Amino acid sequence: MTSEPPLLLALDLTGTFAFGLNGALTAVRAARLDVVGVVALGMITALGGGVIRDVLIGSIPPATFRDWRYFALAAGGGLIAFALSKRLQRLETPITVLDAIGLSVFAVIGASKALAFGLGIGPAVLLGAVTGVGGGTIRDTLVRRIPSVLHSDLYAIPALVGAAITVATARLGVYSLPAALGAATVCFLIRMLGVRYGLDAPKPPGTSGQDSPGDGAQEE
Amino acid sequence: MTSEPPLLLALDLTGTFAFGLNGALTAVRAARLDVVGVVALGMITALGGGVIRDVLIGSIPPATFRDWRYFALAAGGGLIAFALSKRLQRLETPITVLDAIGLSVFAVIGASKALAFGLGIGPAVLLGAVTGVGGGTIRDTLVRRIPSVLHSDLYAIPALVGAAITVATARLGVYSLPAALGAATVCFLIRMLGVRYGLDAPKPPGTSGQDSPGDGAQEE
Amino acid sequence: MTSEPPLLLALDLTGTFAFGLNGALTAVRAARLDVVGVVALGMITALGGGVIRDVLIGSIPPATFRDWRYFALAAGGGLIAFALSKRLQRLETPITVLDAIGLSVFAVIGASKALAFGLGIGPAVLLGAVTGVGGGTIRDTLVRRIPSVLHSDLYAIPALVGAAITVATARLGVYSLPAALGAATVCFLIRMLGVRYGLDAPKPPGTSGQDSPGDGAQEE
Repeated sequence: MTSEPPLLLALDLTGTFAFGLNGALTAVRAARLDVVGVVALGMITALGGGVIRDVLIGSIPPATFRDWRYFALAAGGGLIAFALSKRLQRLETPITVLDAIGLSVFAVIGASKALAFGLGIGPAVLLGAVTGVGGGTIRDTLVRRIPSVLHSDLYAIPALVGAAITVATARLGVYSLPAALGAATVCFLIRMLGVRYGLDAPKPPGTSGQDSPGDGAQEE
Repeated sequence: MTSEPPLLLALDLTGTFAFGLNGALTAVRAARLDVVGVVALGMITALGGGVIRDVLIGSIPPATFRDWRYFALAAGGGLIAFALSKRLQRLETPITVLDAIGLSVFAVIGASKALAFGLGIGPAVLLGAVTGVGGGTIRDTLVRRIPSVLHSDLYAIPALVGAAITVATARLGVYSLPAALGAATVCFLIRMLGVRYGLDAPKPPGTSGQDSPGDGAQEE
Repeated sequence: MTSEPPLLLALDLTGTFAFGLNGALTAVRAARLDVVGVVALGMITALGGGVIRDVLIGSIPPATFRDWRYFALAAGGGLIAFALSKRLQRLETPITVLDAIGLSVFAVIGASKALAFGLGIGPAVLLGAVTGVGGGTIRDTLVRRIPSVLHSDLYAIPALVGAAITVATARLGVYSLPAALGAATVCFLIRMLGVRYGLDAPKPPGTSGQDSPGDGAQEE
């Protein structure tokens, strides 16, 4: 990832910090953890998606294990979340924005890296999305929540769209920094529209009536 | 996997579709998910076991990432389950049969592939079984169920038997299409007998009396 | 791992057996599983951490898949736990001691192996700790408990300390059998002090008052 253009690299590092912070905050709210648990879950949220992608494309050791800045920013985000969890709850909006930046950049860089390792169109789109949502999925599973990406908000869909644009531009031979930023921006906008208007992806037919109980079941 | 004989390949693709369909149906029943979640869990069920095996034997990228038919069938099964979940509940028997075919073929092909990558007898048997049961285990964990393979029905045992026969015939130098079909058939028959007569593997001593509460505990 | 000095190898095998036994006992208590589930969870506890490490450093197939003794001891521990679960509950102290030995040796060997595969300081310390705690984390997730390493007792911290001493001595060029045993001993002592005095790592500010309900929440 060190060969990324500086702007993408800066966004990628920003996203890593945001995921570490937000992932740890979610963990603090979901379960009573100690400092090790909070920081570990922040790091897993920030680094997990990229690690899954790197294992599946054969980029070993994973990129984030070779550049200490990712480790430091992910752990730093987790530590800040641990220390300031009460105060950070007032900052929900900026944190959501930072998190959406992370999602967008991770999806684009993930898809582009999968292509660079010779994966086909379908797997590259999927691995782009996994880069964006994989870490949060592991975190949710560890704190015994049904991964929110599976049932609420538009989260996986913008990642899939961002990854698909990336793959399409690469296949057309026009992938470049502007194309990457464009794909990330589309992902970011869909995600923020989803947050703003509380949009969800469609539910299975016949289940749309029973609204709250299913969602609430995951807190005890 | 494209070098498999056509009959095995056809069964493997059938099993992939069945696992995608059945995995997504289980997910729909267990939790309130959106379309992305249902299709994702169908794909995880269908492809997860083989991906774990390929990561552990070093076949990267995983075989199912290199052949679009696996992706398409797994996703197709998930989409059909999403759209028709109500109606498919009447088709429980044919779906169980298709699922048992998938289990059998996955266990045999998984064990045979592990041997081809130089794994020993024990690991090859284990990885054959993991190919069969791994995807469903990840799915159950993601929707917060204790993986059914750990506590109910004969599911892991037929997979282990099918994988063991495969490894035994390979070590004796008589592994061939008929041997593979024989191993898969034994696995299939044990599985169907287990379904038909509600057979379970033995429970720890002293727990056999308290029958229902433990099982029911996983729905809330 | 077969190139380890005999003493370290013996401790490593002891730890594998202890993890298989203890992991399976925890699984028996947490959920109603059959024999396949209990043995599988014992093996996952014993082998899971090392497998994650080997996948991430690129040591494929994982070391424990290449030496049947690890498989046999992990499965043997699981089988004994299945057969004697009632009686073993009286032996809690020796099992905790054996488990602490496993944790210590796994952390030291894991960190040292990560260094040997070219990982940097931070990742090597982390992967040492993951070798120690990874298997139990997967087991807890599969039986729907919040991984105990995330919220209770000193468990991750001694593993991190043991791994850090290992990495420090290696970087100073003085890593050797006595250094490895020293690092493992420090880890072991911190762990046993934690058990003896019920020490926990710090919780997030503002949560220290509400003591018991959070911990109990994971049984339903």
